[in-house]
Amino acid sequence: MPRYALLIEYHGGPFHGWQRQAEGRPSVQAAVEDALARIDPAAPPVAAAGRTDAGVHATGQVVHADLDRAWVPARLCSALNAHLRPRPVAVLAAAAVAEGFHARFSAVERRYRYRILARAAPAAVEAGLVWQVPWPLNVAAMREGAAHLVGRHDFTTFRAALCQARSPVRTLDSVTVEAAAVPGGREIRLEFRARSFLHSQVRSIVGTLERVAAGARPPEAVAQALAARDRAACGPVAPPQGLCLTAVGYPEDLFAAPG
Amino acid sequence: MPRYALLIEYHGGPFHGWQRQAEGRPSVQAAVEDALARIDPAAPPVAAAGRTDAGVHATGQVVHADLDRAWVPARLCSALNAHLRPRPVAVLAAAAVAEGFHARFSAVERRYRYRILARAAPAAVEAGLVWQVPWPLNVAAMREGAAHLVGRHDFTTFRAALCQARSPVRTLDSVTVEAAAVPGGREIRLEFRARSFLHSQVRSIVGTLERVAAGARPPEAVAQALAARDRAACGPVAPPQGLCLTAVGYPEDLFAAPG
Repeated sequence: MPRYALLIEYHGGPFHGWQRQAEGRPSVQAAVEDALARIDPAAPPVAAAGRTDAGVHATGQVVHADLDRAWVPARLCSALNAHLRPRPVAVLAAAAVAEGFHARFSAVERRYRYRILARAAPAAVEAGLVWQVPWPLNVAAMREGAAHLVGRHDFTTFRAALCQARSPVRTLDSVTVEAAAVPGGREIRLEFRARSFLHSQVRSIVGTLERVAAGARPPEAVAQALAARDRAACGPVAPPQGLCLTAVGYPEDLFAAPG
Repeated sequence: MPRYALLIEYHGGPFHGWQRQAEGRPSVQAAVEDALARIDPAAPPVAAAGRTDAGVHATGQVVHADLDRAWVPARLCSALNAHLRPRPVAVLAAAAVAEGFHARFSAVERRYRYRILARAAPAAVEAGLVWQVPWPLNVAAMREGAAHLVGRHDFTTFRAALCQARSPVRTLDSVTVEAAAVPGGREIRLEFRARSFLHSQVRSIVGTLERVAAGARPPEAVAQALAARDRAACGPVAPPQGLCLTAVGYPEDLFAAPG
């Protein structure tokens, strides 16, 4: 049974997150599995590197799927895309992988991007892709606050109450904060890199950093919140539509020759 | 009667273009005028710098509106945005202007951006904001073709049959073509700058340059098409969703202190 890794992009707006839902509510997993079932009715459930929440986007999600026969990668992509249409889910590349490969457990790195539109006027063209914050944000303060989080820490403060991970300890490899002028305001992009993340970790961190950038808390408050190991010390959780899973890393470069 | 210039952003998707339509079909102009009527029931129709077609976006549209009383610019923006919600139209800035100012006739420059997603898989996250072309595009050939169009020319080949401009002569100040890697493919951005454009001029040019970039025509064919002064020499017109009016220039910097 040949195994394939698939590089997947989706707009999170219409879905109740990655994971298949009870009662047939739309999920990205169900969309992908339905498309796979059209080319192989016996295809087992797929596993994904990142189980994104409702409303969160992905441009670099990776899943693995077992199929009953071998496919030329480009043909596999176009067959799946034909069945995914018109839903906003696209298979960007496919690659044959070893039997032992697992999209989630073989991953050694995840990257997330969070986009904030800091301007008084709401987002029109990019509505649904950014978190619009109507006040100016201090990017230097945001960077200073974020620096306290880089490294190996107990992130209890920054994980959802329903997080199922056994340990709250994670190593955040980097957080970068970049700002660019856009008509009427600024766009701030935060990029997070870690081997793995806790449930709602990025959105919890962004919500806290936004409070720092807005001047409501000093940058040192981020270190205090982290040290508290208490969910109550976290700022408001940032909304899902600004978040995007942009890349998943594996020991080997899976999609070097894009399918 | 104080006159205000408004800097406006909109997603073209839900609208039948800028211009007010018969039969109450949604237009951006109607949305803006309806919002103005909520703060000044006697406000006359507005004039816009660029009368964008159905499906075309704007991040830098400029209109002027006459109001019965003076407004603090920031308050005018937030009042109009409150009435525009939830439609994807936002007023980014406002500025008091002289009585003789006209959003369309005072403009000395327009800038348009056209985004092409060159990859096999359809757009998911940015569906509705790009033209997805499923084959690779030769950016160098596209640049070479575009260079033939820069300068003062008779653009009869590249204007819509229904174009109402008296003269087909326009001066295209510049066309730039940039490419960047995106997951699974490349995004190509074309930026156009001119004092004014003919109806469908940018989309006609982009459709022709796409054929050159795809290898269907040599770059010199663009010069021949221009010289033909014949609509039949134009390539297929590129679809509207890749196009965005990004800026309008005036002799003075209207929104230097954003409202």
